[in-house]
Amino acid sequence: MKIGIIGSGNVGSALGKIWAAKGHEVMFSSRHPEKIIDLAESAAKNACFGLPEEAAKFGDVIVLAVPWSQAENALKSAGSLEGKILIDCINPLKPDYSGLAVGFTTSAAEEDAKVAKGAKVVKAFNTTFAVLMASESRMFGDTSPTGFYCGDDAAAKAIVSDLIRDTGLDPIDAGPLEMARCLEPLAFLMIDLAFNQKMGTNIALRLLKR
Amino acid sequence: MKIGIIGSGNVGSALGKIWAAKGHEVMFSSRHPEKIIDLAESAAKNACFGLPEEAAKFGDVIVLAVPWSQAENALKSAGSLEGKILIDCINPLKPDYSGLAVGFTTSAAEEDAKVAKGAKVVKAFNTTFAVLMASESRMFGDTSPTGFYCGDDAAAKAIVSDLIRDTGLDPIDAGPLEMARCLEPLAFLMIDLAFNQKMGTNIALRLLKR
Repeated sequence: MKIGIIGSGNVGSALGKIWAAKGHEVMFSSRHPEKIIDLAESAAKNACFGLPEEAAKFGDVIVLAVPWSQAENALKSAGSLEGKILIDCINPLKPDYSGLAVGFTTSAAEEDAKVAKGAKVVKAFNTTFAVLMASESRMFGDTSPTGFYCGDDAAAKAIVSDLIRDTGLDPIDAGPLEMARCLEPLAFLMIDLAFNQKMGTNIALRLLKR
Repeated sequence: MKIGIIGSGNVGSALGKIWAAKGHEVMFSSRHPEKIIDLAESAAKNACFGLPEEAAKFGDVIVLAVPWSQAENALKSAGSLEGKILIDCINPLKPDYSGLAVGFTTSAAEEDAKVAKGAKVVKAFNTTFAVLMASESRMFGDTSPTGFYCGDDAAAKAIVSDLIRDTGLDPIDAGPLEMARCLEPLAFLMIDLAFNQKMGTNIALRLLKR
């Protein structure tokens, strides 16, 4: 796949590096692309860098991994995402991290979908910590964590499911995009456990079946 | 512990049987106690049955496991729960099971705490299916699922943590009662996976650490 990454923070960097190493073509992006030369160089030979609007043109799959406060502007400045798959990794945290800024009747994913008109939005990678995605392996002993995702377009979800599996997570389809109203609070539960309950960020969830 | 169970459905029945078998004293209850004679008899010798208000007097720990639509009335008719530990197992499902009826700015646990004045409310057992609690074992292979709980009273949470462990779940403290705003959507995610995504109810979550 050709993957454009909007947001060069921990999540976007980690995902792009994994996918480039797996043979996907990745464009990292930043408003100040000179800052991410090292990032593109540290990834496999399949990675390049540019402006967000260039990454948006480049990718068949676009990853949105910016802070919630920047999501709307980042999408608007990226230009048209018509027909593209947009992976929304965002948790709509309040500025003081005390909780979520939206929920119950909507979600960051649904709000972002309103801005990114015509994009096939899939929520994913919001319940796993960046430190996990950036580490050598996703494994906890011999157990792979679950990568929950949701969205309204079946074909887009199938592609995202494969991209999730490429990262070493076990993809689980949580249903329509509206289910982001559950996946975002789930992310806040993880954030609470990591920081308020002092478990640290080397935690993840596994859906058990029997 | 002396445990009074309000609600003689699948969740309350399963929990009471486990705890009676573990040596706790359990009173099951129903508005029509003659209907639950069999339930008390099918449990270990430590189980008896009565009216909800009798179970509420009997227990140091009270388990509320009724449908959301009946929660307020069940608490009111139980009488004073002042000083008691109230385990809230309730998911505030809409009547058509299409989603949660409350969330984000409140939760079933917080609403129930307003009714049960003076009780030390701990949210627990809302993210595991009744069929799991009613089965021979909670194990998935050699893995025990996580039993998330939250509440505002540390001593009450320590007791509930032990009761969770008695059921074969691995207790994880998710913080203050307000975190029910995340645990209840988590339960709806599980319900969605079981029924809408057709995974069935033999699923559970495990928090991984490394």
